[in-house]
Amino acid sequence: MAHDPRTVPSATISRLVTYLRIVTQLEQGGVRTTSSEYLAKEAQVSAFQIRKDLAYFGRFGTRGEGYTVPTLRREIERILGLTRQWRVAIVGVGRIGEALANYPNFRDYHFELKGLFDLDPAKVGRLVAGLEIKHLSELNRLVLEQGIDIGFITVPPKAAQDAADALVQAGIKGILNFAPTVIEVPREVHVEPVDFLAGLKRLSFYIINPQLKEELA
Amino acid sequence: MAHDPRTVPSATISRLVTYLRIVTQLEQGGVRTTSSEYLAKEAQVSAFQIRKDLAYFGRFGTRGEGYTVPTLRREIERILGLTRQWRVAIVGVGRIGEALANYPNFRDYHFELKGLFDLDPAKVGRLVAGLEIKHLSELNRLVLEQGIDIGFITVPPKAAQDAADALVQAGIKGILNFAPTVIEVPREVHVEPVDFLAGLKRLSFYIINPQLKEELA
Repeated sequence: MAHDPRTVPSATISRLVTYLRIVTQLEQGGVRTTSSEYLAKEAQVSAFQIRKDLAYFGRFGTRGEGYTVPTLRREIERILGLTRQWRVAIVGVGRIGEALANYPNFRDYHFELKGLFDLDPAKVGRLVAGLEIKHLSELNRLVLEQGIDIGFITVPPKAAQDAADALVQAGIKGILNFAPTVIEVPREVHVEPVDFLAGLKRLSFYIINPQLKEELA
Repeated sequence: MAHDPRTVPSATISRLVTYLRIVTQLEQGGVRTTSSEYLAKEAQVSAFQIRKDLAYFGRFGTRGEGYTVPTLRREIERILGLTRQWRVAIVGVGRIGEALANYPNFRDYHFELKGLFDLDPAKVGRLVAGLEIKHLSELNRLVLEQGIDIGFITVPPKAAQDAADALVQAGIKGILNFAPTVIEVPREVHVEPVDFLAGLKRLSFYIINPQLKEELA
């Protein structure tokens, strides 16, 4: 049923995340069925785009009847790997790291924070969001003990590669990189950059080129 | 010389931001010339992709001699609209808003923080990053007085549309939206979403589909 995922554009994955948010809201509101047209309006893309994005992963919905909301929600979660809970460690407990640790509803989002790490002796031992900050030298042991899959890098840019190396060596499978720098990892580890200054620079481009509307990423 | 910007893919804009970071680092290190091959290695894309991305905006570099670093840095800044300084307001001074207000080297990045706004009377009047938090009802006046162009939305998801409406009404041209929800704005206002939970869900997909490497966005 499923398409070869090697052919799926990364923009499709981003849009699936948006569709999931919309159908989850519908389901929480007690709505049982929806349409490509409704999802399109909410996601600010075309109905054709929605059908095309979903078609990479199989057949969803019934012609003329649309989608059953709970089914579509479950299917998108399955596609995205969100039928299991992922365990997360944060490396670097500065302002951004602490803000993320305290982000509300972490659990609701299929992710569980299981570790906080820093190199600063003044931070190690402190409690943040109910977790004790550990020294980075304990990363290997705690990743194994806690079954941690994903690491957030929230250290300054100069320390980002060292943090990435430590996470890779500990056996992490994916990294969410908040440091505004490219990090190098082996092919089997996936890195997702989150760089708000990059977003700000894209914004600058689109403000001076108002005739160009970015497709929803 | 410049291409019609309506035809520029948004991924090209994201990559230009990456190239700018790399050439800025080269320039700070005193390096005078570089090549597509070097930039490609650092940005983790192909040299062909770099030449193609730059070609949307004109001719850069000399065949066989590569690029002059300070010239390329200035040209990319010009393309991105970073030859001027943008003035920023933050709406919502919770943990994320405060972390962003305190982000080091804001000025270095062609952006200047000029206003902090919140609805919470307990926050209004407090100093954060040297700025007094103002009530959101003062937004219109201060956007005008301070020449603010860009707004960050760092409020909870349910308050994001109201924050966006307030920024649009105040005459803002671009919004960096940190709330994990789509906001509606008039066509002439550009929104750039920064959603770390979306990044985390993409990461989940790529961890369960390791054969699929995302192109650098």
